[in-house]
Amino acid sequence: MTLTDRLSIRRSLFLSTALLVSGAQCVFAQEKNPAELSEYYSPVPEIVTPGKTSSDAPSDAIVLFNGKDASSWAAQDGGPVKWQVGDNAITVVGGTGTIHTKQGFGDCQLHIEFREPSEVKGEGQGRGNSGIFLMGRYELQVLDCYNNKTYVNGQTGSIYKQLVPLANACRPPGEWQTYDIIFTAPLFNEDGTVKAQARITVIHNGVLIQNNASIWGSTEYIGTPKYEKHGPKEALVLQDHGDRVSYRNIWIRPL
Amino acid sequence: MTLTDRLSIRRSLFLSTALLVSGAQCVFAQEKNPAELSEYYSPVPEIVTPGKTSSDAPSDAIVLFNGKDASSWAAQDGGPVKWQVGDNAITVVGGTGTIHTKQGFGDCQLHIEFREPSEVKGEGQGRGNSGIFLMGRYELQVLDCYNNKTYVNGQTGSIYKQLVPLANACRPPGEWQTYDIIFTAPLFNEDGTVKAQARITVIHNGVLIQNNASIWGSTEYIGTPKYEKHGPKEALVLQDHGDRVSYRNIWIRPL
Amino acid sequence: MTLTDRLSIRRSLFLSTALLVSGAQCVFAQEKNPAELSEYYSPVPEIVTPGKTSSDAPSDAIVLFNGKDASSWAAQDGGPVKWQVGDNAITVVGGTGTIHTKQGFGDCQLHIEFREPSEVKGEGQGRGNSGIFLMGRYELQVLDCYNNKTYVNGQTGSIYKQLVPLANACRPPGEWQTYDIIFTAPLFNEDGTVKAQARITVIHNGVLIQNNASIWGSTEYIGTPKYEKHGPKEALVLQDHGDRVSYRNIWIRPL
Amino acid sequence: MTLTDRLSIRRSLFLSTALLVSGAQCVFAQEKNPAELSEYYSPVPEIVTPGKTSSDAPSDAIVLFNGKDASSWAAQDGGPVKWQVGDNAITVVGGTGTIHTKQGFGDCQLHIEFREPSEVKGEGQGRGNSGIFLMGRYELQVLDCYNNKTYVNGQTGSIYKQLVPLANACRPPGEWQTYDIIFTAPLFNEDGTVKAQARITVIHNGVLIQNNASIWGSTEYIGTPKYEKHGPKEALVLQDHGDRVSYRNIWIRPL
Repeated sequence: MTLTDRLSIRRSLFLSTALLVSGAQCVFAQEKNPAELSEYYSPVPEIVTPGKTSSDAPSDAIVLFNGKDASSWAAQDGGPVKWQVGDNAITVVGGTGTIHTKQGFGDCQLHIEFREPSEVKGEGQGRGNSGIFLMGRYELQVLDCYNNKTYVNGQTGSIYKQLVPLANACRPPGEWQTYDIIFTAPLFNEDGTVKAQARITVIHNGVLIQNNASIWGSTEYIGTPKYEKHGPKEALVLQDHGDRVSYRNIWIRPL
Repeated sequence: MTLTDRLSIRRSLFLSTALLVSGAQCVFAQEKNPAELSEYYSPVPEIVTPGKTSSDAPSDAIVLFNGKDASSWAAQDGGPVKWQVGDNAITVVGGTGTIHTKQGFGDCQLHIEFREPSEVKGEGQGRGNSGIFLMGRYELQVLDCYNNKTYVNGQTGSIYKQLVPLANACRPPGEWQTYDIIFTAPLFNEDGTVKAQARITVIHNGVLIQNNASIWGSTEYIGTPKYEKHGPKEALVLQDHGDRVSYRNIWIRPL
Repeated sequence: MTLTDRLSIRRSLFLSTALLVSGAQCVFAQEKNPAELSEYYSPVPEIVTPGKTSSDAPSDAIVLFNGKDASSWAAQDGGPVKWQVGDNAITVVGGTGTIHTKQGFGDCQLHIEFREPSEVKGEGQGRGNSGIFLMGRYELQVLDCYNNKTYVNGQTGSIYKQLVPLANACRPPGEWQTYDIIFTAPLFNEDGTVKAQARITVIHNGVLIQNNASIWGSTEYIGTPKYEKHGPKEALVLQDHGDRVSYRNIWIRPL
Repeated sequence: MTLTDRLSIRRSLFLSTALLVSGAQCVFAQEKNPAELSEYYSPVPEIVTPGKTSSDAPSDAIVLFNGKDASSWAAQDGGPVKWQVGDNAITVVGGTGTIHTKQGFGDCQLHIEFREPSEVKGEGQGRGNSGIFLMGRYELQVLDCYNNKTYVNGQTGSIYKQLVPLANACRPPGEWQTYDIIFTAPLFNEDGTVKAQARITVIHNGVLIQNNASIWGSTEYIGTPKYEKHGPKEALVLQDHGDRVSYRNIWIRPL
């Protein structure tokens, strides 16, 4: 339907209604139950079969790691991942570098489970450190903050050095933990300036810890965050920070 | 610290830094590791012990229904609830009216589970209809939309007659389903006009169906939604629409 | 730079920093003034020469009507506009239908001036009615509400039948008035459901009347607003509602 | 009206409608024109008389500086301002410190005009530097960036060291420039963590340069921004950075 058509129709509707108003008192009733004026039938949302539990992937999710198969991932050098796959998990092997998905993602719902080493070693940022980099740039911190003090903008569930989590919902080391993430990618202007900041919602072990918060830019260890223009889809990256953090049940729904 | 103090301190900091810059090349190093410039230690987020599973209440949640005790709720007439409590659930008894929490809530994270009657009766809005009214006004639709067609802005997970869900993630009737809700209350100006619309995020059985969407006003069966100024905390209401819908595991975390 | 390169660099940076930390106390100082850690120089925002007054178009704006030339517009039937151009304004000629821009627009900053007929006729919606349809669908109401009562969700500055303005900032009929509009287009999923609602900020005669408010869908005279998937750029439409409303100084900056 | 009353009424409405539906085909018409279902008449937005031009204060604004009277302001030490009032402007006197409003403000629309010294001296941050601190903490940079290069997150219209402006809309030094600001204050949780980031929209000389962007925290010269819990209303502060920047036409509308 062209713009002209649509506008004509709208106008006709308006005129016919006007006529109706000046007509007999029953004209409206012949047309519609008033409740029906606020009901419509399309487009029909997609049917998605949920997983058996909230850890299981819904039918439309891309399963990035099912406990056995790491083939959706590549090592930092582009080759096969060098992390350890076993016991239904994939575990960081310190010094082998980050791993990243072969596929890129933008706006998404991401479910990911992680487990801190049951043998507690180190303290602060030195205890069970890893990280989930949305679009390879925006780090949701993974750390063992169960009875472990560090800077609050770097604790578990922080957007590293940017957004302090609303709560510390860590489980003890050795137990599996969940992140349920809703991520909205940043938008850029043609000249590279930022049109809309990235936003993130995170539920950690069932507890809301980030509530549609705006991300400042790529997360940095030193210096200020900064947005650098990138594509609408970028790889998801898991960090090797030297500690034996494990991951499992990783699935993602592009939004 | 008064404003004057704070401003003086800021200014002093600025001046001392300026002096440092013109000083010897090593002065910065004596002060701080540059990485520490983006680290801070307070305020410390509250420690919240997560539930055993994502259905279980975290330590700071208010448990509104644990399967047995409906004492947090009142009937429409203010007396004890007339719905049926049993089998670890509370079930609508048609014609007894809504039930509402004795306590009021504003911004919140709400977990609630519901079960549609396993015996399928009726169709469209007539099949397993109930509803969750945030602040007593903003209805998240509860309906059996498993193989059941209705208007899309009234299907399971819609904000009734306002916001179509992003997906239909219904489980079959007779199975327990979950809603994980993040709700931001509306804000009003003194004259009753709207300062900020309410917003809602909903995860249905693990699937994102509302993503920080803006609610239009109180949900209406006929006519337009409209915001009417109300308090910052209002009762949570569950609807009696005549169908035997059950609820369980209801907990809420004021945000 | 490939992902692998970028990740390698990040890692190198991290490692070298780690080494620095364990080095002599002066290493940081040799590198950077700590204030410089939060300063960067690109990308450089575009230089835009502002108009002489806030009514005049900035250098990067598309001038849609300069008081004389209506060639950026077409009539409802696609032909030349049939409204009256003269006296530095373009004025509705009742019954000739809407006019729309030949070019489409999405996110934008729009400046537009309008004048209600100095001879006051009619009341309520019958006095000086016209409208500005962003993307041809989302109507910012134009009406003479100076000493004129109507439904509040249809008064000057409302998003018609959706969003009540925060204030009534109307000038008397016969005087030129301004709308300064910041519009964010809605986003759609592939299946036509809504990914992000449209948002609007409006300053009327210098007074904020809509503050980044979410639009419900296309504005309707009867029945509920609904989003229907459309392109990222759509024509701007001005309404012929029969009254001799004039417009001038129309310019737009795509965002 | 109690909750019980309201719920009863809603239910009655629902039931009566249901009865109507099963009644004669004319019942709806006797009640309402369908267009009226989406119209309502209260609350009525406040009438605000706009200023004569967009620089002039609307009737409900608090005039903070009218060109002559600086009595709404105090010096850093709490005493009378030591800046120079004259020529319809107030001008920084270097070394006398910041000035701040005696009254506090939260959410607001702020109009402020500034003029850079016509005699160009210095470069980068050293040319015509001052700043507008919303709530005494969140700095909108004032600088002469007309043919003057500096770090982009510190140029005119930046939220200092946080948000790069979308454009450089500077007028030449010696000319009056305008900022039209819409500011939403941050919200804090009881424990001091951040509930909602502050947001800002800025129009510079008629050009949109910040579009409802989220502020990271208090603006810092060195180190990371951080939110520290403060009251809902805090003084507006103008910075003495040593340069002879002038201000005029300062008015604010609490939102």
